[in-house]
Amino acid sequence: MKLPAFAHITEVGPRDGLQNEARFMPTEAKVRLIEQLAASGLGEIEVTSFTHPSWIPNLADAEEVVKATRHLPVSAFALIPNKRGMERAQRAGIAGMTFVFSATDSHNKRNLNRSTEESLAEILDLHAAAGAHGLRRRISLSTVFGCPFDGEVPDERILAIVTRLVDGGCERIGLCDTIGVANPAQVDRLSRQLIAHFPDVVFELHLHNTRGCALANTLAGLQAGIVHFDTAVGGLGGCPYAPGATGNVATEDVVSMLDAMGIRTGVDQAALMASNRHLAQWRGTPLDSAIWRIEQRCSLPETTS
Amino acid sequence: MKLPAFAHITEVGPRDGLQNEARFMPTEAKVRLIEQLAASGLGEIEVTSFTHPSWIPNLADAEEVVKATRHLPVSAFALIPNKRGMERAQRAGIAGMTFVFSATDSHNKRNLNRSTEESLAEILDLHAAAGAHGLRRRISLSTVFGCPFDGEVPDERILAIVTRLVDGGCERIGLCDTIGVANPAQVDRLSRQLIAHFPDVVFELHLHNTRGCALANTLAGLQAGIVHFDTAVGGLGGCPYAPGATGNVATEDVVSMLDAMGIRTGVDQAALMASNRHLAQWRGTPLDSAIWRIEQRCSLPETTS
Repeated sequence: MKLPAFAHITEVGPRDGLQNEARFMPTEAKVRLIEQLAASGLGEIEVTSFTHPSWIPNLADAEEVVKATRHLPVSAFALIPNKRGMERAQRAGIAGMTFVFSATDSHNKRNLNRSTEESLAEILDLHAAAGAHGLRRRISLSTVFGCPFDGEVPDERILAIVTRLVDGGCERIGLCDTIGVANPAQVDRLSRQLIAHFPDVVFELHLHNTRGCALANTLAGLQAGIVHFDTAVGGLGGCPYAPGATGNVATEDVVSMLDAMGIRTGVDQAALMASNRHLAQWRGTPLDSAIWRIEQRCSLPETTS
Repeated sequence: MKLPAFAHITEVGPRDGLQNEARFMPTEAKVRLIEQLAASGLGEIEVTSFTHPSWIPNLADAEEVVKATRHLPVSAFALIPNKRGMERAQRAGIAGMTFVFSATDSHNKRNLNRSTEESLAEILDLHAAAGAHGLRRRISLSTVFGCPFDGEVPDERILAIVTRLVDGGCERIGLCDTIGVANPAQVDRLSRQLIAHFPDVVFELHLHNTRGCALANTLAGLQAGIVHFDTAVGGLGGCPYAPGATGNVATEDVVSMLDAMGIRTGVDQAALMASNRHLAQWRGTPLDSAIWRIEQRCSLPETTS
């Protein structure tokens, strides 16, 4: 089994996770969570989203979160859906921007109120502007593996969109299984095609665990040559505009599997449990991760972190 | 990605699942469950265990279950831990026997009250006797990928035990991840070794989902050439002698992933949901499967089966 020695994890829990929680997590608690995630060895964290607060009230404190976590030794990203969001993010001083849009029109219209084509053109402009300001940049392409409204998405459509992105200068592109319908054969097929066409692009997998396949899809991605993965502590997440979708694949589950396979991530599992406990305590409901359930069942002693 | 066109599923929920439930499922409800499982297209079902009722009271009605389901057009198996169990099973008229023991002494002693070596010798005798009676036979080798007491299990130990089994005439051998600690690289490595050494033996994977890796391990097995899998409806299961273990990988989750990948199983997903509903209704607590959670969230209409 051909596997890499190292895999990069981008923690997206504070953004893709907290945006879907039933309650607003107080800014201080968010900052504490991000501090704990950083302390566990996660080197890249998507800390918030500069979506309009009326759309995602849970992340209305984006500016405060960015400012309060800027001192941490991590590569911080924020989600940017449009020009207005980018201006806010720049004023707040974020160092990295994740530009998001959907591969399918129906999802993009519900999410961003415009067609995929319209978003693509706007995103390429913003991406170029961010580059001119020396910011780190990545693209998150939603509904790559299936859309709750349009159903299956042809590989050709993804290839065409990615071609436009690469022609427009994008070097890091996330393939998002927004509603968790991807299967390993599909991940293998699409990843290999994209890597073959664009060997210099960093492709990232952003997987949700709706059908329980996220770790199998992670394995398929690793075998196909993908070494960048988005994950969310505690399996937080979902998608407000995607009926039936559940959380992101849990950071602790991915780290546990990769550790067991001898693939380094730089993340300390025991330290990661501090974030889990903080989150579970705030939320008061169980986290959606296998490792958290083991932790709870076995009543392991608290770590010192 | 090299994948088979067809995978065989042995449903073990009525045995490996129900034995660990908090309550005794009434015999009639068990029979109904097995009927529904058969109706969904599952061609092979482990319907009960002939363990001493004082050890597993939940399956004390083994004889009745075997008799009441004998008319179904499925290949029925029962778990056989020892000579006494085999005698009961023969009197009840079971057509297939799963002989179980553990690869590690500590687990085998707690489970069967003797060493691995002692069980191995006894099992080979029983296996031969069952063959002389024209019964279908398979071996379930527990703690292949790790033991709750002895920890890691060297590949060499598994190879040595399997060699003894094959020399003794065993042609179907289950590799059981009893406590759900297997990882895909390990499944790949061990499966390929065993298949290379014993190309004529049917190796089966019996996976638990403790760390969320069961579908990833299924994928690794498929790629290595394994095409037989034990699964349990609703993700039932666990192991009474293995602290921290959770359920078997859910039949519906495996079928869903394989269907999506174009691997046929002969099982109808919608029909399988009837078993899920029957089980959930009896149990009154949520089932541990991703597909069941989707079913619940989306409130799909009842199927007619």
